[in-house]
Amino acid sequence: MSQLKPRARDLGIPFEGTPGRLNAITDVAGVEVGQTTLISGDGKLAVGKGPVRTGVTAVLPRGRESIDQVFAAWFTLNGNGEMTGTTWIEESGLLEGPVMITNTHSVGVVRDAVIAWQMKRQGKTFQPWSLPVVAETWDGFLNDINGFHVKPEHVFGALEGAKAGAVAEGNVGGGTGMVVHQFKGGIGTASRKLDADAGGYIVGALVQANYGGRNGLTIAGVPVGKEITDLMPKQTAAADTGSIIIVIATDAPLLPHQLKRVVKRAALGIAKNGGIGGNSSGDIFIAFSTANAGAGKDSGLVSVQMLPNDRINPLFAATVQATEEAIINAMIAAETMTGIDGNTVYAIPHERLKEVLKKYNRLNQTREE
Amino acid sequence: MSQLKPRARDLGIPFEGTPGRLNAITDVAGVEVGQTTLISGDGKLAVGKGPVRTGVTAVLPRGRESIDQVFAAWFTLNGNGEMTGTTWIEESGLLEGPVMITNTHSVGVVRDAVIAWQMKRQGKTFQPWSLPVVAETWDGFLNDINGFHVKPEHVFGALEGAKAGAVAEGNVGGGTGMVVHQFKGGIGTASRKLDADAGGYIVGALVQANYGGRNGLTIAGVPVGKEITDLMPKQTAAADTGSIIIVIATDAPLLPHQLKRVVKRAALGIAKNGGIGGNSSGDIFIAFSTANAGAGKDSGLVSVQMLPNDRINPLFAATVQATEEAIINAMIAAETMTGIDGNTVYAIPHERLKEVLKKYNRLNQTREE
Amino acid sequence: MSQLKPRARDLGIPFEGTPGRLNAITDVAGVEVGQTTLISGDGKLAVGKGPVRTGVTAVLPRGRESIDQVFAAWFTLNGNGEMTGTTWIEESGLLEGPVMITNTHSVGVVRDAVIAWQMKRQGKTFQPWSLPVVAETWDGFLNDINGFHVKPEHVFGALEGAKAGAVAEGNVGGGTGMVVHQFKGGIGTASRKLDADAGGYIVGALVQANYGGRNGLTIAGVPVGKEITDLMPKQTAAADTGSIIIVIATDAPLLPHQLKRVVKRAALGIAKNGGIGGNSSGDIFIAFSTANAGAGKDSGLVSVQMLPNDRINPLFAATVQATEEAIINAMIAAETMTGIDGNTVYAIPHERLKEVLKKYNRLNQTREE
Amino acid sequence: MSQLKPRARDLGIPFEGTPGRLNAITDVAGVEVGQTTLISGDGKLAVGKGPVRTGVTAVLPRGRESIDQVFAAWFTLNGNGEMTGTTWIEESGLLEGPVMITNTHSVGVVRDAVIAWQMKRQGKTFQPWSLPVVAETWDGFLNDINGFHVKPEHVFGALEGAKAGAVAEGNVGGGTGMVVHQFKGGIGTASRKLDADAGGYIVGALVQANYGGRNGLTIAGVPVGKEITDLMPKQTAAADTGSIIIVIATDAPLLPHQLKRVVKRAALGIAKNGGIGGNSSGDIFIAFSTANAGAGKDSGLVSVQMLPNDRINPLFAATVQATEEAIINAMIAAETMTGIDGNTVYAIPHERLKEVLKKYNRLNQTREE
Repeated sequence: MSQLKPRARDLGIPFEGTPGRLNAITDVAGVEVGQTTLISGDGKLAVGKGPVRTGVTAVLPRGRESIDQVFAAWFTLNGNGEMTGTTWIEESGLLEGPVMITNTHSVGVVRDAVIAWQMKRQGKTFQPWSLPVVAETWDGFLNDINGFHVKPEHVFGALEGAKAGAVAEGNVGGGTGMVVHQFKGGIGTASRKLDADAGGYIVGALVQANYGGRNGLTIAGVPVGKEITDLMPKQTAAADTGSIIIVIATDAPLLPHQLKRVVKRAALGIAKNGGIGGNSSGDIFIAFSTANAGAGKDSGLVSVQMLPNDRINPLFAATVQATEEAIINAMIAAETMTGIDGNTVYAIPHERLKEVLKKYNRLNQTREE
Repeated sequence: MSQLKPRARDLGIPFEGTPGRLNAITDVAGVEVGQTTLISGDGKLAVGKGPVRTGVTAVLPRGRESIDQVFAAWFTLNGNGEMTGTTWIEESGLLEGPVMITNTHSVGVVRDAVIAWQMKRQGKTFQPWSLPVVAETWDGFLNDINGFHVKPEHVFGALEGAKAGAVAEGNVGGGTGMVVHQFKGGIGTASRKLDADAGGYIVGALVQANYGGRNGLTIAGVPVGKEITDLMPKQTAAADTGSIIIVIATDAPLLPHQLKRVVKRAALGIAKNGGIGGNSSGDIFIAFSTANAGAGKDSGLVSVQMLPNDRINPLFAATVQATEEAIINAMIAAETMTGIDGNTVYAIPHERLKEVLKKYNRLNQTREE
Repeated sequence: MSQLKPRARDLGIPFEGTPGRLNAITDVAGVEVGQTTLISGDGKLAVGKGPVRTGVTAVLPRGRESIDQVFAAWFTLNGNGEMTGTTWIEESGLLEGPVMITNTHSVGVVRDAVIAWQMKRQGKTFQPWSLPVVAETWDGFLNDINGFHVKPEHVFGALEGAKAGAVAEGNVGGGTGMVVHQFKGGIGTASRKLDADAGGYIVGALVQANYGGRNGLTIAGVPVGKEITDLMPKQTAAADTGSIIIVIATDAPLLPHQLKRVVKRAALGIAKNGGIGGNSSGDIFIAFSTANAGAGKDSGLVSVQMLPNDRINPLFAATVQATEEAIINAMIAAETMTGIDGNTVYAIPHERLKEVLKKYNRLNQTREE
Repeated sequence: MSQLKPRARDLGIPFEGTPGRLNAITDVAGVEVGQTTLISGDGKLAVGKGPVRTGVTAVLPRGRESIDQVFAAWFTLNGNGEMTGTTWIEESGLLEGPVMITNTHSVGVVRDAVIAWQMKRQGKTFQPWSLPVVAETWDGFLNDINGFHVKPEHVFGALEGAKAGAVAEGNVGGGTGMVVHQFKGGIGTASRKLDADAGGYIVGALVQANYGGRNGLTIAGVPVGKEITDLMPKQTAAADTGSIIIVIATDAPLLPHQLKRVVKRAALGIAKNGGIGGNSSGDIFIAFSTANAGAGKDSGLVSVQMLPNDRINPLFAATVQATEEAIINAMIAAETMTGIDGNTVYAIPHERLKEVLKKYNRLNQTREE
């Protein structure tokens, strides 16, 4: 979780575009991320007891102290998953609280706990009711998922601990027990800063990556999955049984229908890494804009800024790029993990990955070399 | 076509809400309507020769002289029909030209003619290409639809003749040969003016009504279709073989995602009159807002006004009401018509309709009584 | 809850179409309904203590003992609400468990409890994960909604108590604390049986009705809301702050894309009663077909039956009709209720309603008269 | 147009998956393709006179002689374009005629001509009306697009000339004047044959490729656009002003909602080649299945076969792969073309492309080497 761990581009993996200062979703001013990681127990699965390899990740568009809404939109590449709250986002164009990510069977407890937290912290919800956004991927290969180990206090912890700054990646938060391209996955993030003449906007991505078979894995265009065919999960995991949740944040002044355009491009980032949105995958994405503070007010008229459609291409490109890199960052940060019944998922081996990239003439020189 | 013809509320049919000055889509400032009506020949169908009972209706959001775009959105209740140009509206949130309505088999000629007109009148299209919006309903019961009688000059005529002011209803323009609830249908319009505390906005509807079986016809809640069971089309028309195109215009400052909410409510207006969106119906609706002039510009940032979602209900209600009345206006204005092969569709009989409403205690007093 | 209570048509309210034997969603063979009703406490709101006026309603497409999936689809008229599990229904075309309805702030607990119940009863979920369908409307005018009184055992109770046969209506289950057109609302149901030449299929509707202002209320075309203007909720409830969840069941062999067509028509049933899908309303609908048992299997090829699109109109009409009547049934069955802080919602007065219908010549003769 | 021209894999470009016999959409039994190519004139643009560089491509799902419908679905990556007929496909799940592709300003003439052809050839349309599917990309950089040079006879020619067997690629049919990644583009096709244990199904793709900037061009993971930066269009074409239409055909028995899943994956194939679905792009895709003959009948019940969702992943992968290769095939087949005002678009240079691939260790050995 420390910043001393190398990230994907530290290894020399080439990516398009210019990252923001932290190369993280928190490069978008106001965005805070908080995570609760639950790791306990070892050995044989005893439902309700463990082993536990799960958690909660919270993304707060305007930080913990704000109750101001943001324009938002969502998209599904493959819908074998859940993201609550999307019906109201689709209708209203507004997101009124945090985006939470956890395991598939803990969506409910997280959802109701968000309401409890809103009542406790703010004494009220935006409307008389609240429709929290909670998404998930499945960690049942490593985690006692039917033990329901996520509790309201873990949700409160993620929300209260949310902060700007560097974001922990890999085996943390909702991503603790995740698997991607049959290597260890989890939470990853990246960002892009647009050129000044494109507005200088920031696009940040945060992923909870848990999808894909090994064979398809492509990094920077290189067929890594065909080069590193060992280090497969033990004792066996079905190929492509996972999912990916992607959160896209930007400070560009986009209206809801424009954010819908942006969020759809996250799918292209997955494609670059070799994902196909497999049948068992819940590939669900949400995008929001922190511009247009006050857009959610309920009386009078609201003045909002809109980026013309003709200027949107750099945001599309940045979304593809940040998504692509965030996924690889999740893999690079993740560490080999053993969970229930001794099931083990291996981290992608950094040195071997560099060798493969070199073989295809795609390894950047890095400082230490 | 004269204003001396009674309209639905002149007969004492009760409707909810307050209409605008003309009770027409042209109550929305800037909106112009132009229509070309093609009626010629009688007797047996000779494909390519006639009889002809068709036409073209043009709705220009900001009038003939403007090339400024409007925010727009669309919705389908039942999609057995065509409205071209909707894919770009869905993506961009903007409508960049007129909304045209014609018969099903003339959509193509009208579409390309709109481009030719844009090139001729403005010397250019908005983008290097143009994606015109052209919708249709089927008039093949009365019209030689496979004779392709609509020509580019009829399209130019409708566009060049477009104007503000009262709108001709009934057997005119694209609505010339239409049938609704098995009475004669066609073009109808109505509007609502919101109370000052709701913003005083105008909502206008224009319909090309061609849907529905007799049995379901309900006017002002009264089961008219069960009371007037004669005057059925001759020589036989399948029940519910038609469609309805609805154009909703407003000057309320709504963003595209809000217009999508508004346009969906047009379906509720149909329901009030007894429509169910039958399988053979192309029930396709488009809404646009004339507020936010300049929203379609292509550089810098655009400042736009947005009505808060919390203030949108009066617009929903007005959309339902204006749609409901526009359909009945189409029926009241339409006159009995005989077309191909002697096929005849009867106008709804005004006096009998009043008697039926009176039987159900639903007839308003009118001035002449 | 007894069958001795009159239902809407017992009062002489005229409805279109022919109901099934029970005039309930359970007329569709296999469908079971179970409900847990939570009513306790009186007086001033003490969050976490009560008063409690809420519950859970469960609709099981193939009954409690089956794990066979059904084809399904969903639609939103206005999305200020939640129905979990819809992303996978949209993607897969299949519904893999019960449809649950509760209050807005208990969706989470109900969701996770469904998974726990599936694990307990069947020892497994359909996939390694489960994506339960849980919908809600808001009962915070009468109920201590932020007290989170729905517990997993109430969910288990509704599921284990599910059965075929008559369905309790009014202040029961998830509908316990609901308000519709500013009268007392709740759970209602109705069904239609198609003519033999239309296939003899059954369409059933179950609603949790909680939407609408008084002024718009229309029953059988009669403007009841303008005739009965007293008996408004005390101490004040904002107009149109509610929602409606609609479940449509049929035994007609419809594919998922056809069920999407059917479920959209539920909106037309609301329109007939005067709803407009107001901004604060979560009007979310789901439809499923019990035909095509085994369609959800995961290997080989599946043979399924499909009703041609040309035969779908009677199902559209039945959906509109059953929805319309189910809402009125909810109102007729509901009884005056006092909840938190002495807030009171009145039942629609049966005799006055009959008088109003008579005034508009719309009251059917009934047996007892 | 001869088979002597090398195709992408003949050059040694590596692609995933196993192609069908022709590596073309016509590997799907029954599919026929016909094309009319219009090339005339040179020099300065004289609107209405030329130069002409355009055409029409027709894809007939069950061939010219059949009037049997196919299950179908569509998807938009970026909607700055037109595909008529999609509203009815979305509603009915069925496609009832050919898929036509032409230039943006000829969609109308092609649409109405399809109806005329249907009337002429079959004496009737499927319903009393016809809703043809016509898509487009913009060829105004090379072609006198506002001269409206496509005429009904060109449409009849493409339809009557449709046949099984090898498909001409590059500067032909609707693709005649197209530009992709700022090299010459046009029509391309490819197919995949699934393994026997995946059902042995065929997936074919046909593209009219006209999208993308040079910089993003990636072939087989190799950043070709950064390696070949010369040979840019003259006298200047804006980056990314184009579009791509993709037609996916399969013989796998997929229902409409499953085809919707498949067609969405075409976007991932574009991503692999470096497309981002730019703002000015009309990236619109349609997929159909030739299985389930007779599914469009209008009475009784229809028995259809459905592939379980759990078996759909190989079809997803095949769609991504065939799309990716079809685009590259369009580029490899296309030849340098000069059009209006001397505007010139260069073919991608085959030998230099091979060198680039070799540099990145991504060139397969081919027979001649």
